[in-house]
Amino acid sequence: MAFNIKSYLATKRELIDRKLDSLLKYSSKSRTPLEESIRYSVLSGGKRLRPILMIASYEAFGGKDEAVLPIACALEMIHTYSLIHDDLPCMDDDSLRRGVPTNHNVYGEAVAVLAGDALLTDAFSLMIKEGVSSGLRPKVLLEVVADISKAAGSGGMIRGQALDLALEGIKDVSVDQVEKMHSLKTGALIEVAVTTGAKIGDASDKELKKLSTYAKALGLAFQIVDDILDIEGGKAIGKEIGADARNKKTTYPELVGLKKSKKKAEDLTKKTLKSLKDFDDRATPLREIALYLANRNF
Amino acid sequence: MAFNIKSYLATKRELIDRKLDSLLKYSSKSRTPLEESIRYSVLSGGKRLRPILMIASYEAFGGKDEAVLPIACALEMIHTYSLIHDDLPCMDDDSLRRGVPTNHNVYGEAVAVLAGDALLTDAFSLMIKEGVSSGLRPKVLLEVVADISKAAGSGGMIRGQALDLALEGIKDVSVDQVEKMHSLKTGALIEVAVTTGAKIGDASDKELKKLSTYAKALGLAFQIVDDILDIEGGKAIGKEIGADARNKKTTYPELVGLKKSKKKAEDLTKKTLKSLKDFDDRATPLREIALYLANRNF
Repeated sequence: MAFNIKSYLATKRELIDRKLDSLLKYSSKSRTPLEESIRYSVLSGGKRLRPILMIASYEAFGGKDEAVLPIACALEMIHTYSLIHDDLPCMDDDSLRRGVPTNHNVYGEAVAVLAGDALLTDAFSLMIKEGVSSGLRPKVLLEVVADISKAAGSGGMIRGQALDLALEGIKDVSVDQVEKMHSLKTGALIEVAVTTGAKIGDASDKELKKLSTYAKALGLAFQIVDDILDIEGGKAIGKEIGADARNKKTTYPELVGLKKSKKKAEDLTKKTLKSLKDFDDRATPLREIALYLANRNF
Repeated sequence: MAFNIKSYLATKRELIDRKLDSLLKYSSKSRTPLEESIRYSVLSGGKRLRPILMIASYEAFGGKDEAVLPIACALEMIHTYSLIHDDLPCMDDDSLRRGVPTNHNVYGEAVAVLAGDALLTDAFSLMIKEGVSSGLRPKVLLEVVADISKAAGSGGMIRGQALDLALEGIKDVSVDQVEKMHSLKTGALIEVAVTTGAKIGDASDKELKKLSTYAKALGLAFQIVDDILDIEGGKAIGKEIGADARNKKTTYPELVGLKKSKKKAEDLTKKTLKSLKDFDDRATPLREIALYLANRNF
């Protein structure tokens, strides 16, 4: 039977959304504004790219999605915290995210800062609690939690966000600088999503290396396509079109042109497939995700 | 030989400061503004109450300070992140902290938000990396990391900060509400400092319970004394005197008066000592810390 990527993504997205909803239930009858604001941002329908990649990577080693689901959700919580903080007035000052007003526009800045802080903090206790109860070996669980923390921290995603802000408004930004920024800001979390799934699936070091190559290429391709869509406008991009230009961000297409950007995204996508050539059919979702993201219009 | 609390605190503080400096060394010749801002806030000389409590608690079970030092430092990093974010314009909008300009006043809001995020995130990878290499059992380490995350998260410290903001400017705040807020905002991290040291020291459940009682009483006493000092002014309080009144925060002394507040702090301190009555001489530092904090003027 032919693999249907759309239905694969929809099924996983639903699984993740349901799990996130239940993990962030709180006392459903009397939620605090902080809890409401957390739910608002987490449950406003993202693509769930990172958790889906973690699941797909785990499946490439024969794993079943339920076992990594809580860790995958925790990673999505960390991703969501980063979006809430990136949107703040003192950062990118964005008013729309995923098609709805940003967290601080609805709940105020103070609550938005705290909602981000809470998502980041809670992600760690959640990973451990759920990881222990689903029987993950303590050593693996410790490694995975440390990996995720490192990818999200001052040497990873946060460094990328700081770099992004530092490059704003600067004229002579190089392609290398933009790639470096993306590899940290978006790439680090995408890579750790893939390697975490693989580690829980008992991947060898050699396999992990190939999956890192896959994830790095996919992460950059994803970002370049994002930049292209920010200019050309997608069907349902969910944020303000032209936001990058308004924020004086140097994008890939701006530096090398639209045509070369598209070529670069294609080459990177080929690289993702090549890095998986020794993997069997169970890696089909990983391959199809890369193709799907390259050809998306959202 | 009589126990000298001042020299005990000074020794531990120095130990902690040195370790924090080395943990946050980065590339010392070319630090980014983000790294500089992290070091600025962490190394600006706090009391180091939480890490000292963790060490003292571990020592009550015969432990040597070096073994818990990295975990203690990670907790101080989490505490420091919370101070940086609490001081932000959208929160308490404070201009001074520990006697020097607040992080956002020196490095700008965006970097301050990211510095807090980075300290919080890095604390987790650091705890795991250092905990593993110092030979902590994986199961204990997982429990300790989860405890700390829980204490700092949306059910602990962050909930307390949200409650604090929610109570601002409200007239009929009750003693119960203020105590609840303090028990979360300050108490949760103080309690987890003490219980973490004890857990690493292999404390029994009964001992953990007594130490929780100790920490809860100490945490509230600490906060009441803080409120008293905010009114009376300490020798070197390091923040703006009267900041609570300016921020329309309802304080303990305001609700029950200065005299009753002092009595309450005394009673709580007695409670801390009582909770330790079955502990031997190795708990002397814990006892002396409680007495010292109750009688401080800073």
